[in-house]
Amino acid sequence: MAHDFRYQRRVEFSETDLAGIVHFSNFFRYMETTEHAFLRSLGLCVHGRVGGRLVSWPRVHAECKYESPLMFEEEFEIHLLVRHKKRTTLTYDFRFTKLGAEKPLARGSVTVVCATIDEVTGKISAIAIPEEIDRRIEVAPAELLHGTN
Amino acid sequence: MAHDFRYQRRVEFSETDLAGIVHFSNFFRYMETTEHAFLRSLGLCVHGRVGGRLVSWPRVHAECKYESPLMFEEEFEIHLLVRHKKRTTLTYDFRFTKLGAEKPLARGSVTVVCATIDEVTGKISAIAIPEEIDRRIEVAPAELLHGTN
Amino acid sequence: MAHDFRYQRRVEFSETDLAGIVHFSNFFRYMETTEHAFLRSLGLCVHGRVGGRLVSWPRVHAECKYESPLMFEEEFEIHLLVRHKKRTTLTYDFRFTKLGAEKPLARGSVTVVCATIDEVTGKISAIAIPEEIDRRIEVAPAELLHGTN
Amino acid sequence: MAHDFRYQRRVEFSETDLAGIVHFSNFFRYMETTEHAFLRSLGLCVHGRVGGRLVSWPRVHAECKYESPLMFEEEFEIHLLVRHKKRTTLTYDFRFTKLGAEKPLARGSVTVVCATIDEVTGKISAIAIPEEIDRRIEVAPAELLHGTN
Repeated sequence: MAHDFRYQRRVEFSETDLAGIVHFSNFFRYMETTEHAFLRSLGLCVHGRVGGRLVSWPRVHAECKYESPLMFEEEFEIHLLVRHKKRTTLTYDFRFTKLGAEKPLARGSVTVVCATIDEVTGKISAIAIPEEIDRRIEVAPAELLHGTN
Repeated sequence: MAHDFRYQRRVEFSETDLAGIVHFSNFFRYMETTEHAFLRSLGLCVHGRVGGRLVSWPRVHAECKYESPLMFEEEFEIHLLVRHKKRTTLTYDFRFTKLGAEKPLARGSVTVVCATIDEVTGKISAIAIPEEIDRRIEVAPAELLHGTN
Repeated sequence: MAHDFRYQRRVEFSETDLAGIVHFSNFFRYMETTEHAFLRSLGLCVHGRVGGRLVSWPRVHAECKYESPLMFEEEFEIHLLVRHKKRTTLTYDFRFTKLGAEKPLARGSVTVVCATIDEVTGKISAIAIPEEIDRRIEVAPAELLHGTN
Repeated sequence: MAHDFRYQRRVEFSETDLAGIVHFSNFFRYMETTEHAFLRSLGLCVHGRVGGRLVSWPRVHAECKYESPLMFEEEFEIHLLVRHKKRTTLTYDFRFTKLGAEKPLARGSVTVVCATIDEVTGKISAIAIPEEIDRRIEVAPAELLHGTN
């Protein structure tokens, strides 16, 4: 069972804005990409078939606190921690740090709900997290969470 | 039958990059948004059901020539012209002009193919443009096309 | 003095994702675009010269709660309300509603800090909100805020 | 002297659209990211100081031909080749291939102009490619170019 994951990347030109820094909305894309890499590391996919149903994870809440800017071509790490696991939802915390730095430059959090998508009507319905996903993910120890956000 | 369309918008902050200008990839999004507004003005949708099938218009070619930069909050117009209509494809030309200016700041072109998407397999297959779409769209007169690109 | 603003737009194709709905990160772009339109309606610009200095508004916190999905070509309204005005920061609340609907589909909040950018070093420093900006913006009445978020 | 570069990446969720495939505009972002990684591999930066001046590379032309779709989480390679080197411009060709596949799924081309940006006025002016950049980049051999686009 896994409760955290680290993912590194480098700022791309198209992610910056005219203030010369990464556009704030891209931190949400970085969080999502880290979450998907975490799931992939467990043999899971954020959007795919589980037991005959199309299972996806719509976001119900997302948040980010920005502490210092991130510039073009800088390398950084995103540290994901599982904060909560409930019957139908997962909450992930994220800490952004420049490579080599100690102090996080941003902290975020995303809550996702496990859902099926009806392939005829498009209707999205919350479901209990399927057992084969549930058994692979656990909440991070309190001391790790405390240190992060 | 329609052969051209004009669409206006204003540059948004998230469309700029650290060079202080609109990121070049966004011109392709502007062209697409103009194409979809053109179809909508004809009662059509770029991705939807036509006679029981899911019909969409994947891009097979896209091109843009940049002549001068576009800055944050500037207002501009995109002028779409239908350049070619073939059995399965449409080619649109686009001219970008700042409001009040004469000289275009960019010119582009997109070729799209009419396709069905198989909803079980996801397979995309080119089809002849359905009659109810075909009868609404015509190639622009040569003198307009000549003046544009 | 102004304390709220309404902005309408239509979902663009490039804003959707493979789940068939608007990608959650785009709600943050919509909020920002609404904020900038609000400032523009007051004769202000989110990034420009005020009294000889380059003044900009970096985000220090952003949050969104998603209640129901937004689909391609749907029209919606974003209602901005000024929640807090402090010496150096502003907090905006946002309510997203489909045109014609009553119930909001999403609610968000963004806190921005007034800052100067040193044009030689790029250093960003918080400053008190300049008087010519401060006198144009006021906190929304409590009854409006209560009803919104 | 270098004339080609290979870059690998995996499709991210936010890069897809409701048709279930990578949005066509993102191929231009992928090309740009590959170009910047190529420059970085030569100790260069696409936007930075060269001999006291701010040197950047605005795009003057960009083009892409799409042959088959790219899906969420697929891994692919972008192969960059230098097609032309003129006094003020470079033209890069790009070939996109899924990992393990032979046949390219897309081919593109971008022409960039070497320019200085006046830091007071923002004015962009074309300049001859500085010697320290010029001596690191060469046109690819004809047989490589012939095989690619």
